[in-house]
Amino acid sequence: MTQTLDYEPNMVLATKTYDVVGTRPVRHDGADKVTGRALYGADFATAGLLHGSILRSPHAHARIKSIDTSAAKALPGVAAVVTSADFGSDSDAVVDLGEGATSLKWLRDNVLASDKALYRGHAIAGVAASNPHTAEEAVGLIEVEYEVLPPVVTVEDAMADGAPILHDDLKTEELGEQTDTVSNVAQHFQHKKGDVSKGFAKADVIVEREYRAKTVHQGYIEPHNATALWNNDGRLHVWCSTQGAFTVRDAMAQLLDMPVSKIRVTPMEIGGGFGGKIPVYLEPVAALLSRKTGSAVKMVMSRADVFEASGPTCGSWSRVKIGGTSDGTITACEVELACEAGAYPGSPVGAGAMCALAAYDIENGTVDGYDVVVNKPKTAAYRAPGAPNAAFAVEQAVDELAQKLDMDPIELRLKNAAKEGTRRVDGPTFNRVGLVETLEAMRDHPHYSAPIGENQGRGVAVGFWFNIGFDSSVNLAVNADGTVILTEGSTDIGGTRASIAMQAAEVLGIPAEDVHPSVVDTDSIGFTAVTGGSRTTFATGWAAYEAAQSVKKQMIERAAAIWDVDADAVDMNRGVISSKSDPELSMTFKELAAQLGSSGGGISGTASVSPTGVGGSFAGNIVDVEVDPETGKTDVVRFTAFQDVGKAIHPSYVEGQMQGGSVQGIGWALNEEYYMNEAGGMDNSTLLDYRMPTSLDLPMIDTVIVEVANPGHPFGVRGVGEANIIPPTPAIANALQRATGTRLFETPMNPVAITAANGD
Amino acid sequence: MTQTLDYEPNMVLATKTYDVVGTRPVRHDGADKVTGRALYGADFATAGLLHGSILRSPHAHARIKSIDTSAAKALPGVAAVVTSADFGSDSDAVVDLGEGATSLKWLRDNVLASDKALYRGHAIAGVAASNPHTAEEAVGLIEVEYEVLPPVVTVEDAMADGAPILHDDLKTEELGEQTDTVSNVAQHFQHKKGDVSKGFAKADVIVEREYRAKTVHQGYIEPHNATALWNNDGRLHVWCSTQGAFTVRDAMAQLLDMPVSKIRVTPMEIGGGFGGKIPVYLEPVAALLSRKTGSAVKMVMSRADVFEASGPTCGSWSRVKIGGTSDGTITACEVELACEAGAYPGSPVGAGAMCALAAYDIENGTVDGYDVVVNKPKTAAYRAPGAPNAAFAVEQAVDELAQKLDMDPIELRLKNAAKEGTRRVDGPTFNRVGLVETLEAMRDHPHYSAPIGENQGRGVAVGFWFNIGFDSSVNLAVNADGTVILTEGSTDIGGTRASIAMQAAEVLGIPAEDVHPSVVDTDSIGFTAVTGGSRTTFATGWAAYEAAQSVKKQMIERAAAIWDVDADAVDMNRGVISSKSDPELSMTFKELAAQLGSSGGGISGTASVSPTGVGGSFAGNIVDVEVDPETGKTDVVRFTAFQDVGKAIHPSYVEGQMQGGSVQGIGWALNEEYYMNEAGGMDNSTLLDYRMPTSLDLPMIDTVIVEVANPGHPFGVRGVGEANIIPPTPAIANALQRATGTRLFETPMNPVAITAANGD
Repeated sequence: MTQTLDYEPNMVLATKTYDVVGTRPVRHDGADKVTGRALYGADFATAGLLHGSILRSPHAHARIKSIDTSAAKALPGVAAVVTSADFGSDSDAVVDLGEGATSLKWLRDNVLASDKALYRGHAIAGVAASNPHTAEEAVGLIEVEYEVLPPVVTVEDAMADGAPILHDDLKTEELGEQTDTVSNVAQHFQHKKGDVSKGFAKADVIVEREYRAKTVHQGYIEPHNATALWNNDGRLHVWCSTQGAFTVRDAMAQLLDMPVSKIRVTPMEIGGGFGGKIPVYLEPVAALLSRKTGSAVKMVMSRADVFEASGPTCGSWSRVKIGGTSDGTITACEVELACEAGAYPGSPVGAGAMCALAAYDIENGTVDGYDVVVNKPKTAAYRAPGAPNAAFAVEQAVDELAQKLDMDPIELRLKNAAKEGTRRVDGPTFNRVGLVETLEAMRDHPHYSAPIGENQGRGVAVGFWFNIGFDSSVNLAVNADGTVILTEGSTDIGGTRASIAMQAAEVLGIPAEDVHPSVVDTDSIGFTAVTGGSRTTFATGWAAYEAAQSVKKQMIERAAAIWDVDADAVDMNRGVISSKSDPELSMTFKELAAQLGSSGGGISGTASVSPTGVGGSFAGNIVDVEVDPETGKTDVVRFTAFQDVGKAIHPSYVEGQMQGGSVQGIGWALNEEYYMNEAGGMDNSTLLDYRMPTSLDLPMIDTVIVEVANPGHPFGVRGVGEANIIPPTPAIANALQRATGTRLFETPMNPVAITAANGD
Repeated sequence: MTQTLDYEPNMVLATKTYDVVGTRPVRHDGADKVTGRALYGADFATAGLLHGSILRSPHAHARIKSIDTSAAKALPGVAAVVTSADFGSDSDAVVDLGEGATSLKWLRDNVLASDKALYRGHAIAGVAASNPHTAEEAVGLIEVEYEVLPPVVTVEDAMADGAPILHDDLKTEELGEQTDTVSNVAQHFQHKKGDVSKGFAKADVIVEREYRAKTVHQGYIEPHNATALWNNDGRLHVWCSTQGAFTVRDAMAQLLDMPVSKIRVTPMEIGGGFGGKIPVYLEPVAALLSRKTGSAVKMVMSRADVFEASGPTCGSWSRVKIGGTSDGTITACEVELACEAGAYPGSPVGAGAMCALAAYDIENGTVDGYDVVVNKPKTAAYRAPGAPNAAFAVEQAVDELAQKLDMDPIELRLKNAAKEGTRRVDGPTFNRVGLVETLEAMRDHPHYSAPIGENQGRGVAVGFWFNIGFDSSVNLAVNADGTVILTEGSTDIGGTRASIAMQAAEVLGIPAEDVHPSVVDTDSIGFTAVTGGSRTTFATGWAAYEAAQSVKKQMIERAAAIWDVDADAVDMNRGVISSKSDPELSMTFKELAAQLGSSGGGISGTASVSPTGVGGSFAGNIVDVEVDPETGKTDVVRFTAFQDVGKAIHPSYVEGQMQGGSVQGIGWALNEEYYMNEAGGMDNSTLLDYRMPTSLDLPMIDTVIVEVANPGHPFGVRGVGEANIIPPTPAIANALQRATGTRLFETPMNPVAITAANGD
């Protein structure tokens, strides 16, 4: 069955072709972006605007004994100062803003600390002043009396006996039961399938290792920003950079105890998110300051604020024990994954545990997850959150098992690959998935059989992300010139204006350029969940598909009315409306559009959907590295990213997602980390010291799009934004092992680590 | 049948009551308006904004021999200068932007004159500079060589033999035939019913008079403004103050020869329109300057610009001959109406002629209309355009006929009143209309029988406006808290955010405050015609009704799905969804809204409508005036406005419309006029010299809302914005005749005219 594919830098292994879907039109927002016309939050201005600044804790862990804001308030130009007390609430109700249940108190405290500062950079107070400099000066005049406490910044330290406790009232939930144990472990859960002890008993070979990953940041180029205007009629308007305008609306409603409809959120253009632009940080502070002052208040984070006070993804500790028979059958696998939640419970361990063993059809498996608070900023989502941490462990263990069994690592994976009907260790049974096709593409790709040079090694790994559905809305209306306007509530972080417009265009049989998408505010479109979970092209695209079906139906009815025939006798295909029986009766979409005004008026369509047929996506990497034997400096010399995307609506932007996820994974693997000092502070909170890979550090990332249609979507879309960040860290670790003979068990695998491990 | 109504300052003679429709909630945009938060065009700013200024002709009539812009272009800070040549087109195609067919050349020439300047203030060139002052200075450096020609500024002068001709190629259309006669008369048409000579032969009494009305301006408080950005991708974005964002889009598409979908128009808040904010003036100039400079260009008119270079309504000449028998039957009426078109053809004479005799069921009638160009700014719509000019004549003639017949003027009107089935002289046959009910309310109102003082007189008059339908779109979506967002394309010049939201609220059985309306841009809603013709509450309200019906249907289906019953077995009344058979199954709208997210996702509704069941509106006034016998100074001492509105969705805003129209009519009657000098220039183009009535000049305007439901609308709406401006001028003339014994035949009936007429 093995065949070698002809090399192309960007391959699309397509199963079905369409007129618009699968083509590569210029994105609708392209000109605005490249000419600087797109308006970001920092561009926002309005009459009488005040500027805000935040006082942040210099301590990683401290009790707040008192806050004296009098000197700050007295500074000329200062309009208001707010602290946690201004929320006017001590509710600790359990709320869920779409990222798991949490306490309202924790959400509030993360925005403005009340009793304790839990990480360096934790917001303590906010100031509004006539200009940013006065606001900053006033921040320096706020006096806070702290009782400094010892910090813990890793899960192992935080889980150790006698560790400093962050929350006196946090009691561990142990396997679904609430215990009385006060600890830093918010939750321990377990997924289980079969009997691992029986499985290990059958194994000929067992690998057992511990792995560690460091905290890393999404590194979006645009810092968080927010402007809020609390109007005299009690309505609050927020302009901000967010992945989810409605998510911000929900969060503000909870934090400020307002009905959602009193809040209007206008999503400004967004300069990157990757999961980190979902929570609110500045927005509630700006709102409280606006309520006090009656003026609009604008706040913008510095880069240090972004690192120290927005949500990175988790550092983690994990242990994997995996056993297999000599024929390459994995008989059992045991995974423990402990993830940093940051200052408040809610790490990505849940998602990580779901994905940990998803690539394997294993009879016996357990995954234990631990959600652990530490004195770091509360973690946020970051592209497939938790899954890279799990994969760094599991995909290395699988690689080591292959080595011990002397099997090709792709063949071992193919032999044990999850497929339609496989029951996952975490419970669900797979619908149609494309792991086998992805692994076959990897095996057959010329990269896999290419010769390799001195000091080089080749590694492979795969990763799974489940993707999500959730609510989306789209409105369409037909212009007289045959173009169509499209409004949506999904902010566009990865080209989704194009991928959503294209799905409407496909249904209507018109060019992608003839659909004009706009991302509008929360008062102008039906509820639309966050742009995250790789849902947007899937779910909002589905809404576009449905709304376009409604327009199509009305266009057919209108043509039928004009021709005075029955609507059932009319059809619309590829943008031509025609009678099924009379060849004389035929109009293009444009021709009919021009007649709408004179034949009964315009045509609009709308759809609000909440699709359930979500399809998970598998990604795989082949990576060649070259290690300088003297310095340990690693170059990625060749990198091919594979992903089953279901259907690539716009292949270029799918490739961009695959390349972007790969590059971020390379950063995690080789360079990036929160470098923490003894006092629990981050020592490298600048983009100079927190070194992300640039184009000069990287090879071109080749891509292979594998299309195994998701049967749960009209065009087969799965969602492509996340799975691609999962395989790079283990694939690079596996490559480094081949290059140096030494396996590394902790990220980042930087020159220091490599030279240390290789005994230099 | 006569009865006296109990006096209330604001009466509503309602025929049907609803839960929301007919109530008086605070308008949704109220807080924004009273606190200065609403953003008008002059508030608009963006990065790199340039400022524009316009060179205007100092001559009322002149040939443009050359334009030298070199000195202006050389001024530091000047970015670009444009003239008519920059349109790059000499097309004289016939286009219709919703206000009648006209020539593209005329539209273009009115924006920037090419061969001739046709009124003082006519735009000649536009300048963009780094600030408004430099732009203004540069305007002064443009050298134009004019050949000054004699002007004509009244229809009588323009129609006279040997009159200076504005357009060498304008040939009169005479009774539907294109002639070869070059003249200032663009068109002469005639409506005819029966045989007037036979009618006059039967008459016992005949009145025949000539009447004149002066040019007047809408006098909106916010001057015209526009910002345009011609983006690098060829898309043009315009922010402006307009009654119709889509109308601006259509006009720009024609003037700039672009597809409509390349243009996005964002309607800023509007500070009054009254019909005058429909044409484009600055928008195309700003666009041309933006195309040349690559920057956004903003332009704002001065008050003098508004008077001299935007569109006032027409001055007119008319003749009425009316005959009746001694029992009060009108046997014939002959009307001639000649209206100023301003510099280019297209006066409101067509609408005026439609309305002239609409109040009367006359067997024999003719209306002759003349559309006449003069050296004044091109007229624009102004509240029931043309109809006040006609009514000033006809309603005085009817009054004089009543006096000659010694009949009560209301009884004479009742005897001859148009009603359902009456064929109008201009053609159509009335559906159900409320003239009789309006006249009866006038007759029965305590004002009509109240005693009257010395030097006082009481006059009555009625007026008709046909109203229009046209396209409108509305989108709705349900929020989780049970409120509903509403987006619409109708700019709100008279409280229509409220009146449209209320119609959706009525259908959904929720409070008006729970529907949040937003007026959005042309890329965010289906095509919606201009806010004008009293169509918005009627047609966009209908779209809201239809969209709400769609939401209601989906809410019922969702409840049925949740209850696992058939949707046919579920109903929704007054915001409660319940099973028709099982009393246990019941939910409020809010309760179901909260469950949408967990039961299949959000619910949106949309509707694009083009309703045909338009219902005309009749208005009537009773006016008491008191004239100072020495000075001729007239005080309006009591004023009651009556109108058949069909159904008042929000009675307060209907009353506001009635009061506003009445006040504008009082201004026309007593004060306002374009005071023209010998050179054809306006001598009073400031709000100090163009004296509009202020609250100190006016009594409280009492209102009587008469509701005779329009069978062509779900709530019976007719449209209320315009009919109310028609009766004030003749009612005041009729009152003045009673107060002084002398009838005046020309507006304004100011102290000079009154003292002159009374021989002082």
